[in-house]
Amino acid sequence: MDFLATCKRSISCLLLIPYLCAPSVMANDEMISPAAVSGSANSNVPTAGPARPKNIIIMIGDGMGPAYTTAYRYYNDNPETEEIEQTVFDRLLVGMSSTYPASVSGYVTDSAASATALSTGFKSYNGAISVDVEKRPLPTLMEKAKALGLATGVAVTSQVNHATPAAFLAHNESRNNYIDIAQAYINTDADVILGGGQQYFPPSLLTQFTDKGYQHITEFSQLETITTPKVLGLFADVQLPWAINDKQGHKLSKMTQKAIDLLSQNQQGFVLLVEGSLIDWAGHSNDIATAMGEMDEFAAAIEVVEQFVRESKDTLVVITADHNTGGLSVGANDKYEWNPVVLHNVNASPDDIATRAIADEQWQEVIASLIGFTPSDAEYTALENARMQGNEPLTIALRKLIDVRSNTGWTSGGHTAVDVQVFSAGPGARLFGGHQDNIDIANKVFSLLPESVTKP
Amino acid sequence: MDFLATCKRSISCLLLIPYLCAPSVMANDEMISPAAVSGSANSNVPTAGPARPKNIIIMIGDGMGPAYTTAYRYYNDNPETEEIEQTVFDRLLVGMSSTYPASVSGYVTDSAASATALSTGFKSYNGAISVDVEKRPLPTLMEKAKALGLATGVAVTSQVNHATPAAFLAHNESRNNYIDIAQAYINTDADVILGGGQQYFPPSLLTQFTDKGYQHITEFSQLETITTPKVLGLFADVQLPWAINDKQGHKLSKMTQKAIDLLSQNQQGFVLLVEGSLIDWAGHSNDIATAMGEMDEFAAAIEVVEQFVRESKDTLVVITADHNTGGLSVGANDKYEWNPVVLHNVNASPDDIATRAIADEQWQEVIASLIGFTPSDAEYTALENARMQGNEPLTIALRKLIDVRSNTGWTSGGHTAVDVQVFSAGPGARLFGGHQDNIDIANKVFSLLPESVTKP
Repeated sequence: MDFLATCKRSISCLLLIPYLCAPSVMANDEMISPAAVSGSANSNVPTAGPARPKNIIIMIGDGMGPAYTTAYRYYNDNPETEEIEQTVFDRLLVGMSSTYPASVSGYVTDSAASATALSTGFKSYNGAISVDVEKRPLPTLMEKAKALGLATGVAVTSQVNHATPAAFLAHNESRNNYIDIAQAYINTDADVILGGGQQYFPPSLLTQFTDKGYQHITEFSQLETITTPKVLGLFADVQLPWAINDKQGHKLSKMTQKAIDLLSQNQQGFVLLVEGSLIDWAGHSNDIATAMGEMDEFAAAIEVVEQFVRESKDTLVVITADHNTGGLSVGANDKYEWNPVVLHNVNASPDDIATRAIADEQWQEVIASLIGFTPSDAEYTALENARMQGNEPLTIALRKLIDVRSNTGWTSGGHTAVDVQVFSAGPGARLFGGHQDNIDIANKVFSLLPESVTKP
Repeated sequence: MDFLATCKRSISCLLLIPYLCAPSVMANDEMISPAAVSGSANSNVPTAGPARPKNIIIMIGDGMGPAYTTAYRYYNDNPETEEIEQTVFDRLLVGMSSTYPASVSGYVTDSAASATALSTGFKSYNGAISVDVEKRPLPTLMEKAKALGLATGVAVTSQVNHATPAAFLAHNESRNNYIDIAQAYINTDADVILGGGQQYFPPSLLTQFTDKGYQHITEFSQLETITTPKVLGLFADVQLPWAINDKQGHKLSKMTQKAIDLLSQNQQGFVLLVEGSLIDWAGHSNDIATAMGEMDEFAAAIEVVEQFVRESKDTLVVITADHNTGGLSVGANDKYEWNPVVLHNVNASPDDIATRAIADEQWQEVIASLIGFTPSDAEYTALENARMQGNEPLTIALRKLIDVRSNTGWTSGGHTAVDVQVFSAGPGARLFGGHQDNIDIANKVFSLLPESVTKP
């Protein structure tokens, strides 16, 4: 594999080479971060502590471009107070990252190529699961961590074998080979695998996992009974329920806390991937109310990690997005306004509202109650026409109605190329400041792994 | 004026108070910046030099949200090389900023409220020119600088009395009072005023300027003959020509260089505002080819300043946007692609192409030659229909055709609320790292002004 050839696509990657060869710069890490100096952000980055972290937690908000974190701040704003409350994203912002894939795929990445970059430090084609443009496997962060004796885990809200976690745990020429990827997980030795995806794990494969010592659970309530690794928790056929519909709430936070508890039992340290997977799914659907629910879910999981970083003092968290989804804009249609209070009053996802409204003759009342406002006569007429066409048209009509009321804009059902933010705290956090490329993030993380650890 | 009351709208503003009371943190400024450590960015921030700058240059890319700087990187990419070249924005990125106005105006700011925040450190209503929500004048950066004996100046591509420069030089209850604002400039004692706006400066006002010692010029070629302050250079009736149509090129760079040369003659130091004003205008028109031309114009001006910062060692530059315009997205319409090479081949702004195509019977050849590709038969038919309706419809049709070919998306003819980036270099640059609010930027700049200077 020609590191230089792949690296050449990014000037900043080339600039990183001398840095990678001189890890002594890490000694600067105990200096006060610029954000800490400014007094406005990142004050919870430990400024005293080890130069190199024992534990590394990578958190990916799938599809979470800058408009999502901005929207979330205003969605999160308490209208009872005069100030606009900072979010965990504001507290932890340190830099930004470009996300373009290997040149064969142009400038707009998919989740697979971006997760490959973040997991391996190499650009590849859209669809690649930690293989290079010649489809040869690339060493992943989790493989490096395992080789060093660290515990590893993933906790996600999609199926566990979806593109992002797959690129951290497996190699495949296509993200669509879900069965193969699930099968490959048996060889990862990962200590914690939490998320959805029951349909990709047939009984024969589950037997292999239990034979290897994995505790296999399928009910979320079973999670609290797990006290030691290893665990394979598959809590849904495919993805977990939308956060906006999940009254139990914050499953990602609970999976994240459990993963930390279990992985911390390895005295050498651990590497954990946490993904707010469904931010992207809501973005693909241009569904702002559901997207804000998923942002809240991801933010809550980050707060769990932030607390752990603050207490443990030897844990680095690096949070980013793999790309931006949907061309979301906070304000649209020539109007200088965005109305997040509309979104706060939405009580269920549009697809759920549509299902319930189609099943109920009193559909107007169902919609008014769940969407949080009473549509106008003209809006009801449009909804009625959509309802007669079925669930999907009514779902789309409800999303569009919420867009109009909140003045939210979208340009695509796919991804866009805008740079994403990088957030970090803990030992090494300041390395992620300024502009970087997504492969730089991986290479910096690699440089922070222990040089060698005696295997337990 | 109740600083706390206005400040209360931003948690980070409150957090800034102890910092403002303890300027000794500036001593940390000589430490290596995180970007410098990462090796990927900002390596030209002087790490040795005074803790406090002598000169401060504020540069505002009007409307330049994160999608604009990302788009510009790929627009700027040399397809002859494998790597994606970094831009000056990548080199200088340090943080991000929220831009919301005073609560009376919601979450989406206009240029006036945002420039007021950046100039005074206070939130106000949309339309306000450095007055508070009660329409009382707020002290501006330029007034503070003048009181300290510093030279001041503005160099912009809009009329010099447009919202952004107006909020640095004047006070008015409405940005639309162009005549009043121009009249107020006579009392600013600003040393350099460069841009457009002849129509707002009647002969009687110009006489007042020349009576005060200003050299008044109207031809751009006269600029090189100016060797001492003061100067009022008005090079267009309203705004300067689009950069994409201006074959002489880079007028903003030349105005910036001249402003630096003139203001540097003040031994106490200076404060200069440079605005890439027309990025916003192109964004309002959803005109991606023209917007990229304006981004190139602004980037070139930043490179002039970057060079001066590197050489002078006692100059701070802080670059940001006042807001995002147009809901630009880099990729759209469900397709994972963006094609900047299309934009590189556009040889004139769509409004200019339309004017020329309407005046010429061989309009198909005119369009193909200026737009840089040959439209399909269906595209020509659409253009023909638009041409029959006149200049504006043809201009819009050309913009949309370029959007389709480049796969560019927009959601608005107005502004959106997405956070903007902050770029900086020179003494004090690292104070602008992490997340902040736009009033924090002003308050940090104020803290870097000399405490007192003997007036010359």
